[in-house]
Amino acid sequence: MDMTEKKLSSKLIYDGKILRLHVDTVELPNGKQSIREVADHPGGVAIVALDRDGCVLTVKQYRYVFSRVVEEIPAGKLEPGEDPREAALRELKEETGAVPERFTELGALIVSPGAYGEVLHLYLAEGLDVGAQSPDEDEFLDVYRTPFDEMVRRVTDGELTDAKTVAGILKVYALRQRGQ
Amino acid sequence: MDMTEKKLSSKLIYDGKILRLHVDTVELPNGKQSIREVADHPGGVAIVALDRDGCVLTVKQYRYVFSRVVEEIPAGKLEPGEDPREAALRELKEETGAVPERFTELGALIVSPGAYGEVLHLYLAEGLDVGAQSPDEDEFLDVYRTPFDEMVRRVTDGELTDAKTVAGILKVYALRQRGQ
Repeated sequence: MDMTEKKLSSKLIYDGKILRLHVDTVELPNGKQSIREVADHPGGVAIVALDRDGCVLTVKQYRYVFSRVVEEIPAGKLEPGEDPREAALRELKEETGAVPERFTELGALIVSPGAYGEVLHLYLAEGLDVGAQSPDEDEFLDVYRTPFDEMVRRVTDGELTDAKTVAGILKVYALRQRGQ
Repeated sequence: MDMTEKKLSSKLIYDGKILRLHVDTVELPNGKQSIREVADHPGGVAIVALDRDGCVLTVKQYRYVFSRVVEEIPAGKLEPGEDPREAALRELKEETGAVPERFTELGALIVSPGAYGEVLHLYLAEGLDVGAQSPDEDEFLDVYRTPFDEMVRRVTDGELTDAKTVAGILKVYALRQRGQ
């Protein structure tokens, strides 16, 4: 069966700094009409960064949406026209000061396909040379180092809940377990 | 350092079927002001469902935001006031027809903490009795069964990109590898 939903019209609600919201009227496969609310996002990058001692770098920052400090792997938004790999190296350096010896793609993630357009590109950074942080002017974050096995335990046990952090750490874990 | 961002004002932009968008002015830890765009979401559930043959159930559905069919573990939104566990059992039955013998919490995920308020509750469903699907009126989806090891390979290799699917499958994989 063709499951395509055909766009009939689109109404732009908001076009802001990060988010862009539009509400579209679509034709469903059964011929009926429905609306689709879509929050566009410029896309992002996230990095599983392992230092020479086998520790994972994470950052803790206040997340306004959840009114609390959240621990995550380093990550950030794509600048307009920016290559994801370059963006990931930039964000890693800005947030942690680290420059990796080896840098590998870990694939993409779509974070919430129902209504949110964000695509996140995951990378593995190894053999880090760590210099000084240089966060954005309105970014406040602390960097932490955790042995990899301990981090696998923490994401598996639900101590860390950020989806890109859980997916990124466990992708590296599964690749290692499978000898890749 | 106290990293709290204090809300100074909030402007509601849109209040729709799924999404609610507001733009808040906040005071940063350094005393400066900034804006925070927030897309609220009612929260959701997702289920790693294993049948009696050790196969994972996934659904393929057209995702308008990405203009393509996406393969995901069964999932859905919370109804107002609904308990996440009840919602997960409901969604699993609606989307796949399955009723589990054992049902275990796998923890929560925040899918994109920068601007999106969605919290997703993950569950493991085992020992499935599979009846007929009963999807929502405007929901069109096909159910697939894949051996668990093959699914681990597919999410690790980046064949599947849905974040809750990657995180859910690899959480179950890590729990098994670690003998939990």
